[in-house]
Amino acid sequence: MSAPAASSPAGGSVLAFDVGGTDMKAALQDGSGKFHSLLRMPTPRDPARPGDAVVKEVAALAQRYTRDYPQVSVQALGLVVPGLVDEGTGTGLFSANLGWRDYPFAQRLREETGLPVAFGHDVGLAGEAEMRLGAGQGLRDAVVLIIGTGIAGAVFCDGRRVRGGGYAGEIGHAAVPTGTLCACGAHGCLETVGSAGAIVRRYTERTGRAAAGAKEVLHAAHNGDADAAGVWADAVEGLADGICHLAAVLGTEAVILGGGLSQAGSDLTGPLRRAVDSRLSFHRRPGIRVSVLGQDAGLMGAALHARGLTGQPL
Amino acid sequence: MSAPAASSPAGGSVLAFDVGGTDMKAALQDGSGKFHSLLRMPTPRDPARPGDAVVKEVAALAQRYTRDYPQVSVQALGLVVPGLVDEGTGTGLFSANLGWRDYPFAQRLREETGLPVAFGHDVGLAGEAEMRLGAGQGLRDAVVLIIGTGIAGAVFCDGRRVRGGGYAGEIGHAAVPTGTLCACGAHGCLETVGSAGAIVRRYTERTGRAAAGAKEVLHAAHNGDADAAGVWADAVEGLADGICHLAAVLGTEAVILGGGLSQAGSDLTGPLRRAVDSRLSFHRRPGIRVSVLGQDAGLMGAALHARGLTGQPL
Repeated sequence: MSAPAASSPAGGSVLAFDVGGTDMKAALQDGSGKFHSLLRMPTPRDPARPGDAVVKEVAALAQRYTRDYPQVSVQALGLVVPGLVDEGTGTGLFSANLGWRDYPFAQRLREETGLPVAFGHDVGLAGEAEMRLGAGQGLRDAVVLIIGTGIAGAVFCDGRRVRGGGYAGEIGHAAVPTGTLCACGAHGCLETVGSAGAIVRRYTERTGRAAAGAKEVLHAAHNGDADAAGVWADAVEGLADGICHLAAVLGTEAVILGGGLSQAGSDLTGPLRRAVDSRLSFHRRPGIRVSVLGQDAGLMGAALHARGLTGQPL
Repeated sequence: MSAPAASSPAGGSVLAFDVGGTDMKAALQDGSGKFHSLLRMPTPRDPARPGDAVVKEVAALAQRYTRDYPQVSVQALGLVVPGLVDEGTGTGLFSANLGWRDYPFAQRLREETGLPVAFGHDVGLAGEAEMRLGAGQGLRDAVVLIIGTGIAGAVFCDGRRVRGGGYAGEIGHAAVPTGTLCACGAHGCLETVGSAGAIVRRYTERTGRAAAGAKEVLHAAHNGDADAAGVWADAVEGLADGICHLAAVLGTEAVILGGGLSQAGSDLTGPLRRAVDSRLSFHRRPGIRVSVLGQDAGLMGAALHARGLTGQPL
């Protein structure tokens, strides 16, 4: 690990951890907002003690950063996780994928590290970061939509993120007309047609041919593959349905696309803008933007959240 | 007009006005929250000066209340109107039905009456009243859904009403799979299938028989009329689609039904609860409640809003 540049602002450093369903990321953030020694590794799993496994790994990494940067005084630690979370009490309420229920992340990490701990929802905090430092700057009514294997959102109304008791933002599990039976048990969920995962699955179902990812399906569509084009168009239509709902109910000014599918850029935003535009009448018309922070949004959100404990915001 | 009872609390009185597309209501509210001389009359219209016509009538009524209650010191005036409003500046941005655009209601009424004026959206403020004094007490995440000729909502997230720049709450103009072309120009709007107006219209389209109101269609359904039952069931399904969207996106705890259709009581809430329940999986499951304040919710909201200016809340 290399030390932060001597020119770094004097503001305090924080540690940031973004735990995902497959991988987790970690970094030291200096007072200027720059990440150092950004690490990526498989998320530790222990079916019997899933929360403890994460806390143990995070605490070990925290110790390693402290050891590798002896000249840095770490002020706080930020951790974001998926699933249902209670940010107020620092509890991971439920993760279908990682297996915990009502696990007191913030308390356990405070005990293990001795640091002030900020705990939050991965997509929620990624959204906070995008709104404050990325594509959502200056907006009050916006939705950050992370489209990957599934779809999840961070909903901002009148400048504040909507929590809904930890349940808000599940736009991937709101129904659209073209949606089908979802793994969650409901029918018609947007992520059954509009996610990168759905694009790959539906292409294979139609053609019997495997695709490595949504990017490959898009490439096939560009090369005249009608099945690929159809699957891509279905995803756009489904996403447009979901976005138009947001516009009607919340007066959303802009939807900011993140996650793997957003890397399609104008192949996604172009048709999506047209589809949204064709559906609305007197409604506020949401702009369609692409995330600026990209894959680091969750880590940046964890760092910002930690910084909120230190009185030294970026 | 009769004077407020001598036993009324000493808290100040306010004047409240609820301007609707057809009728307007007015009342004096004493410090205990009781309305006096509640009046209902046709909304004054002047195609050339639609805003002025309302202000003139409201000012004349204010003068009449002041004259009829000489012992009462009126502290403030609250006015709620339909359409798009900017509550911050006190402006009626747009009403398709009543015809104004960017009309400075609060300023004009202050000039005419000399009173502090609170100005707001009719459904939004009816929702505020329902949350504070009616069926929404104690809830933080709820939607008040007014179902009459059309459908409009007041959306509450984390204890606050969502404004969305004046555009939030148009749940009647969010699409559902069974919706059709709407007068607003969009396709599939919930109010084309789920409103009292749609129930009457669709029943007539199916049968060629006129119905005086949704109540009559419900009565026919009870008497074995399959068309009536079908139209009613479609409305319930459409409303369930809309409500499930709210649950997924906002973590809504309860939907509070108001407006004419809510008078159907358990004929509406029973099947609606079952339909909502059958659609959701891990989501927070919203309760289905009926408005407590009923038709006076808008007037109560105007009074509460006015009271907010006086430092004498109920």
